[in-house]
Amino acid sequence: MDIALVVGTACPALGRAVADALGVTPASCSVRPFPDGELEVELRSSVRGANAYVVQSTCAPVGERLLELLLLCDACWRAGARAVSAVVPYFGYARQDRRQREGQPLGARVVAEALGTGRLTRMLAVDLHSRAIEGSFAAPLEHLTAVSLLTEAVRPRVRPESILIAPDLGAVKLAEAFGTRLGLSMAVVHKSRLSGSEVAVRAVIGDVRGRSPIVVDDMISTGGTVVAAVRALREAGSGPEVTVVASHGLLVGEALPRLAEIGVRMLVTTDSVPPPAQVPFSHQVVSLAPLLADAIRRLEEHRPLAELLASR
Amino acid sequence: MDIALVVGTACPALGRAVADALGVTPASCSVRPFPDGELEVELRSSVRGANAYVVQSTCAPVGERLLELLLLCDACWRAGARAVSAVVPYFGYARQDRRQREGQPLGARVVAEALGTGRLTRMLAVDLHSRAIEGSFAAPLEHLTAVSLLTEAVRPRVRPESILIAPDLGAVKLAEAFGTRLGLSMAVVHKSRLSGSEVAVRAVIGDVRGRSPIVVDDMISTGGTVVAAVRALREAGSGPEVTVVASHGLLVGEALPRLAEIGVRMLVTTDSVPPPAQVPFSHQVVSLAPLLADAIRRLEEHRPLAELLASR
Amino acid sequence: MDIALVVGTACPALGRAVADALGVTPASCSVRPFPDGELEVELRSSVRGANAYVVQSTCAPVGERLLELLLLCDACWRAGARAVSAVVPYFGYARQDRRQREGQPLGARVVAEALGTGRLTRMLAVDLHSRAIEGSFAAPLEHLTAVSLLTEAVRPRVRPESILIAPDLGAVKLAEAFGTRLGLSMAVVHKSRLSGSEVAVRAVIGDVRGRSPIVVDDMISTGGTVVAAVRALREAGSGPEVTVVASHGLLVGEALPRLAEIGVRMLVTTDSVPPPAQVPFSHQVVSLAPLLADAIRRLEEHRPLAELLASR
Amino acid sequence: MDIALVVGTACPALGRAVADALGVTPASCSVRPFPDGELEVELRSSVRGANAYVVQSTCAPVGERLLELLLLCDACWRAGARAVSAVVPYFGYARQDRRQREGQPLGARVVAEALGTGRLTRMLAVDLHSRAIEGSFAAPLEHLTAVSLLTEAVRPRVRPESILIAPDLGAVKLAEAFGTRLGLSMAVVHKSRLSGSEVAVRAVIGDVRGRSPIVVDDMISTGGTVVAAVRALREAGSGPEVTVVASHGLLVGEALPRLAEIGVRMLVTTDSVPPPAQVPFSHQVVSLAPLLADAIRRLEEHRPLAELLASR
Amino acid sequence: MDIALVVGTACPALGRAVADALGVTPASCSVRPFPDGELEVELRSSVRGANAYVVQSTCAPVGERLLELLLLCDACWRAGARAVSAVVPYFGYARQDRRQREGQPLGARVVAEALGTGRLTRMLAVDLHSRAIEGSFAAPLEHLTAVSLLTEAVRPRVRPESILIAPDLGAVKLAEAFGTRLGLSMAVVHKSRLSGSEVAVRAVIGDVRGRSPIVVDDMISTGGTVVAAVRALREAGSGPEVTVVASHGLLVGEALPRLAEIGVRMLVTTDSVPPPAQVPFSHQVVSLAPLLADAIRRLEEHRPLAELLASR
Amino acid sequence: MDIALVVGTACPALGRAVADALGVTPASCSVRPFPDGELEVELRSSVRGANAYVVQSTCAPVGERLLELLLLCDACWRAGARAVSAVVPYFGYARQDRRQREGQPLGARVVAEALGTGRLTRMLAVDLHSRAIEGSFAAPLEHLTAVSLLTEAVRPRVRPESILIAPDLGAVKLAEAFGTRLGLSMAVVHKSRLSGSEVAVRAVIGDVRGRSPIVVDDMISTGGTVVAAVRALREAGSGPEVTVVASHGLLVGEALPRLAEIGVRMLVTTDSVPPPAQVPFSHQVVSLAPLLADAIRRLEEHRPLAELLASR
Repeated sequence: MDIALVVGTACPALGRAVADALGVTPASCSVRPFPDGELEVELRSSVRGANAYVVQSTCAPVGERLLELLLLCDACWRAGARAVSAVVPYFGYARQDRRQREGQPLGARVVAEALGTGRLTRMLAVDLHSRAIEGSFAAPLEHLTAVSLLTEAVRPRVRPESILIAPDLGAVKLAEAFGTRLGLSMAVVHKSRLSGSEVAVRAVIGDVRGRSPIVVDDMISTGGTVVAAVRALREAGSGPEVTVVASHGLLVGEALPRLAEIGVRMLVTTDSVPPPAQVPFSHQVVSLAPLLADAIRRLEEHRPLAELLASR
Repeated sequence: MDIALVVGTACPALGRAVADALGVTPASCSVRPFPDGELEVELRSSVRGANAYVVQSTCAPVGERLLELLLLCDACWRAGARAVSAVVPYFGYARQDRRQREGQPLGARVVAEALGTGRLTRMLAVDLHSRAIEGSFAAPLEHLTAVSLLTEAVRPRVRPESILIAPDLGAVKLAEAFGTRLGLSMAVVHKSRLSGSEVAVRAVIGDVRGRSPIVVDDMISTGGTVVAAVRALREAGSGPEVTVVASHGLLVGEALPRLAEIGVRMLVTTDSVPPPAQVPFSHQVVSLAPLLADAIRRLEEHRPLAELLASR
Repeated sequence: MDIALVVGTACPALGRAVADALGVTPASCSVRPFPDGELEVELRSSVRGANAYVVQSTCAPVGERLLELLLLCDACWRAGARAVSAVVPYFGYARQDRRQREGQPLGARVVAEALGTGRLTRMLAVDLHSRAIEGSFAAPLEHLTAVSLLTEAVRPRVRPESILIAPDLGAVKLAEAFGTRLGLSMAVVHKSRLSGSEVAVRAVIGDVRGRSPIVVDDMISTGGTVVAAVRALREAGSGPEVTVVASHGLLVGEALPRLAEIGVRMLVTTDSVPPPAQVPFSHQVVSLAPLLADAIRRLEEHRPLAELLASR
Repeated sequence: MDIALVVGTACPALGRAVADALGVTPASCSVRPFPDGELEVELRSSVRGANAYVVQSTCAPVGERLLELLLLCDACWRAGARAVSAVVPYFGYARQDRRQREGQPLGARVVAEALGTGRLTRMLAVDLHSRAIEGSFAAPLEHLTAVSLLTEAVRPRVRPESILIAPDLGAVKLAEAFGTRLGLSMAVVHKSRLSGSEVAVRAVIGDVRGRSPIVVDDMISTGGTVVAAVRALREAGSGPEVTVVASHGLLVGEALPRLAEIGVRMLVTTDSVPPPAQVPFSHQVVSLAPLLADAIRRLEEHRPLAELLASR
Repeated sequence: MDIALVVGTACPALGRAVADALGVTPASCSVRPFPDGELEVELRSSVRGANAYVVQSTCAPVGERLLELLLLCDACWRAGARAVSAVVPYFGYARQDRRQREGQPLGARVVAEALGTGRLTRMLAVDLHSRAIEGSFAAPLEHLTAVSLLTEAVRPRVRPESILIAPDLGAVKLAEAFGTRLGLSMAVVHKSRLSGSEVAVRAVIGDVRGRSPIVVDDMISTGGTVVAAVRALREAGSGPEVTVVASHGLLVGEALPRLAEIGVRMLVTTDSVPPPAQVPFSHQVVSLAPLLADAIRRLEEHRPLAELLASR
Repeated sequence: MDIALVVGTACPALGRAVADALGVTPASCSVRPFPDGELEVELRSSVRGANAYVVQSTCAPVGERLLELLLLCDACWRAGARAVSAVVPYFGYARQDRRQREGQPLGARVVAEALGTGRLTRMLAVDLHSRAIEGSFAAPLEHLTAVSLLTEAVRPRVRPESILIAPDLGAVKLAEAFGTRLGLSMAVVHKSRLSGSEVAVRAVIGDVRGRSPIVVDDMISTGGTVVAAVRALREAGSGPEVTVVASHGLLVGEALPRLAEIGVRMLVTTDSVPPPAQVPFSHQVVSLAPLLADAIRRLEEHRPLAELLASR
């Protein structure tokens, strides 16, 4: 494989782990801020003629991460890389995949178009919040999924009383994917105005009495959705132990104390975003490195990605 | 308003109705097939300096409808229209908004890109199957909704025992919009592998016993989803009278007899696609003309579209 | 040769014949209409890293054929093909290579631009109606010619009294190409207002008395041009036996009975468009497969196409 | 009319005449070569908010004329013109509208694409050598014709014995347009290998004995085609007086003495290219100014161009 | 003037001052970070049909500022603005206008291309570090200068012993512009290896003995260049009082204490970047509002920008 | 190396020398003017699958050279070259890298955009007048420098009393590069209005008394800058012998006699532009062939260009 793996500053540990998994040395690359915050980017090893893969999540601060990604891709392209692929474990602004009101921008498309200036040959992303944003990118997107990695991490914790929980309708397909692999049934928490009133109520669909919930979502940001779901589960009689599984653990604001307070005992996420140092409960971080390395290897060897792809 | 309303052959009655509602005469325009099926398109009235609006659904045969739309837009553009907007009441291939498997094309993007060659200033569409395909278009999209028109059509039929039904998860938001306007509660039919088995089961979420279902969806194609939902509703004890409401009534294949057989008494759709001549039950066709005409008028008068837009 | 030959549904037999001639198995590829007519396209064999050639004529219904071609190309591109070439034996809308009147679209360019969204590396086409539409394509075009194949098919039927006929001015260069190869003289039928009057008259240029006409054209659609030319030839004293040779045999509408009625004994076309099942006179179908396979092989082997190209 | 008429250095007199016909003052604009030949271009009057029309033929030296045109369009665009239209009375490289052999460039498309970088809103051109190059331009093309102007100039010279001559097949449609207007019959000179031999022969189609030829073509470059046609006419018995009419009088190389020698008495061209100072026979130069001014006025007033367009 | 002035969060006070100077109310616009740092942008007043001007400096953090600018421009465009102009008082990454070494990106072009996705009609910027980056933008750039504003602010402080100082060669043209307006002579500090050695030395060109330096530069970042220049001036015998004038006062890191320590008594900058709250010497902030407002008004009134432009 | 070296007519000797240095035969390629000046371009050897390098300076007449370059690139691209790189030893219009006044075009960008239509993979240029025009090109630019070649040519002429002269501020960095290599000190001639007056004066910075100036610039056009600098040097007491070194020797107008008159004894340039036949003093022409060949070889072998690049 004549590849150059270029690792940005958003998730450096993951990048190095991908390199290890591929058995390559990351391209020597310097990304340093000038005193005024502008980035000085320089590839120090040659990428000429190589297929370059630039690993960079666009987590917060998204604009800075995105600009760094663009600078790295530009550097690869100008330095003569044969192809430049962006490997974006966490892709920001995916929730802005439509305008909700007149006067709003279409955030996901704005980010996708900015990325489109990077002369990308290909994009790799993991468990995007909205699958249809595939259509926003100018380059082909390989939409990978961490479901396999996450289910293997969760499997040892599965008990007879375990039940998978989709904390809202958007998480149902993901929860089903876990259910199929783990042989567990599923319940859904649905926030709706079922009665036609203006007040939204969270209803639990499925019998959770006495069951131990494993809440599944693509990402945990402030934890609000999970917290509300767990409250509804409690009211519906679920057991006290809660496990939370998510591809992307942003865990911003008061997410951690709120999750702790509501009784979360175990959190499983990937390293698409660098995990927080202090977590007040058990936090298992599953590395995406095997997934990303496998995808890159298959691309280089012209093999199908097949089961690495999100079952869409 | 210096506009040129150009009406394609996919939904000519709707086009003329839009013109009437706007109080304008449609642009004189000839679309005729040559003997080999290629289209001879010609604008006979001048569009120079005008804002052109080309009304054409891309219903089946989608390729032909799309090519006609492109030819009409090209004719407007070359003839000097100041701006060209595509008004697409029904937009085909919206369900292919993501690749489901490696080796598939991204159908919605393919169609959107082909449209993008038409030098469109703007797109208008109604109740798209997937809201996120907004991100696939190069031109800004005004995503209009027929919910207001449809609820007014349904309102006289609402009884105390009526209940809104989302026949799958994708229809929940639409059903909620109806519920808010009609003051009705909602139930959801969910096709899932709740038990982790490989067999999909349709569960009814909400109490439908003795209630008269009003099934809501964005489109009725073969009617399969509605038929399966009604079967599940029956098993869950719903009443025999079924009303079906959908923005787009494609009604292909055996849709009509199947709907009749399952007990549908009333179908409400718009004229985004020309309705079938013979329907074996009551079929109310609500014209999109007021909606489209209102949108065009607001655009021309630089007013917000506001409540005409899909509540996204 | 690491190629993937993808065969669309417009001319499947030709596609398979090209595969045979190249000694390759066509890529496994499914193109199926959903009940509402939208196409479900899926490559089942991997094209990653291969040069993909998508064989699809854009004969009637042109829009559907074109959209299928775009979906196939998109599928190849997203699945990682190294390059995607469209092989279009018959290219529709080639006659709309200029606007004839204000208010018309520029049909050939519209089709070419839609094709341009397919990220094509290259186009291959055969005996285009207008050679200058080469300039409409964003990708380079290899304009192949079937003249060699067709002359070899006609040669056994050449008699001392045979004479080549260009049925209008646009066919003169093609007829000359046949003449050079077959050693035959040529006459031209010219439809004109030679006298300055408003009535168009078909004049025969050249002496055809007692000669057996071999009428040559790039395509036979309704047969109108050939029928009118043969009438003029008869009035000018030509013999009763008429042979017709054309690259593309669309043969729509009443073409076959009209040609039979006017005395055509033999028709020679290629399989760029699937030939009709029943032809009321002798119809020799010359396969383009050797030509297309030879072109593909030369491209893959980086050899000149040379004599395969239309002598422009 | 809020227009800015910008006149390049290729045909300054025509540009000023267009301004006079429109009743406007040309934009103050300086185009001066630096000592090394690079052009210093500067608009001295404001074009902000105006529709700019840049008048420049791309006659020899085509590269210089084209670059000047691009610089002028760029200056207009950057200075805030609302729209920039290129008015190109003579468009060079129109004969390279297809590749004739592998290894050639597609000259007309190369020039059209370079022009496409000029952010043109619209192109105006006159009697293009190949009508299908309309498809090569990214901007819409108004293909004007000087036939009306030229026929009025020729009309006083028409005698009962006059006959229109198309000196090759490419000129037939143009000659027919003259014939319809002047009420004259037409003959065609055709250079062909009618006998299948390798020697090309010029045959005269139509009876020219004793007639006075009026030879019609879109352009006269070296005069070779006209000279050969007149020789063939002489052999076919035509009278000695020859009139030549062409939209574009390039008249390069030995064109003038050759035309004189062959007996041309009268030449009628337009001023799309500045006419030579010394012509050894009568040379009437018909200005394109009324045509171009009329076209610009109609565009500004949003009226159809109609009869100004080449009858395509 | 039908304009919509949209003010981003980078320099809100300047934006409001521009609105005041224009006599308009800024468009109602909300820019709020979600808890994970992604921005929620929404125009609350209508921009349909208006010329939108989005005021946003791309100062640190550049990526965030740039993304906000793109989101604002996208919101304007989708909401139907007739034209969208970016007004960027301070433009980041302007110093990366060339690659200095293989392996670097071309930062200014990367930012310019990202901006190019914003469908901008026009860019306005002030005293760019490198004038040639005008060529990097897809949209036309109006390169405004604050020299007039700054000279008027400095004029009252000019003494007979004042002398303008260009602290490096890149500032010479700017210092000359001040010199011409203030009637002052100039000296230049040049950092060079004049002797061919490897050690760079700062030489003072011009006699500064006993003179009071007014150091002029386009931007003050860490103050390093100014500090070194003042040291060289001191060694060359200049007086102790130092005034510093710059268009852009980034003043990052230890800039302020370093400038204080070296004896700067007075700093004059514009508000292109929000000024620091505490400055340990006199700091006059000249607002760009009159300049920007004047430029916008001239654009809207189709008048030349003339003396507002950087004398390039 | 599978490369095709295509040599245009602007600097044919240099092109052949590059081929020799690479040990390849230039592609057989014909570029001939038709009688009307349009170019007939044809590659006679196959470039299919090869990396094509087209060597062509865009010296005067720039438009013709540029158009020829575009035609050559188009021919390579259509004929199936794998990649097309433009090797432009002298790039015209580089001085128009910014608009100096409203109403001017941005010449360098206009040329760069026209080049951008050539589907270039890469550009190679030598000692561009403005380094920042790198940002104007759509393709990556390798900015090579002839400083090494030129210093080796000058070295034998260096005397103890030699001093390098930058004839204006723009040449300082170049002169420094010479100084570092030759171990010489440098003086600068600066044209300025140091006193604030309107009269520009050329001052000499550095002590040149009795020294022999070696004047260094990127290009010599009319020689005006050099002549003025030498006059200033003389007034400042420099010795009579003057050497001039420049990458590009345009030497237009009265450059040669003026340089002779001012006392230039030796001129060193490259062959980026064909040198004049008669030079009234010693003229050493250093071929760029080794530099260009080395760059091409490194690109083909995927090695860094490193020290071949302009120290930017």
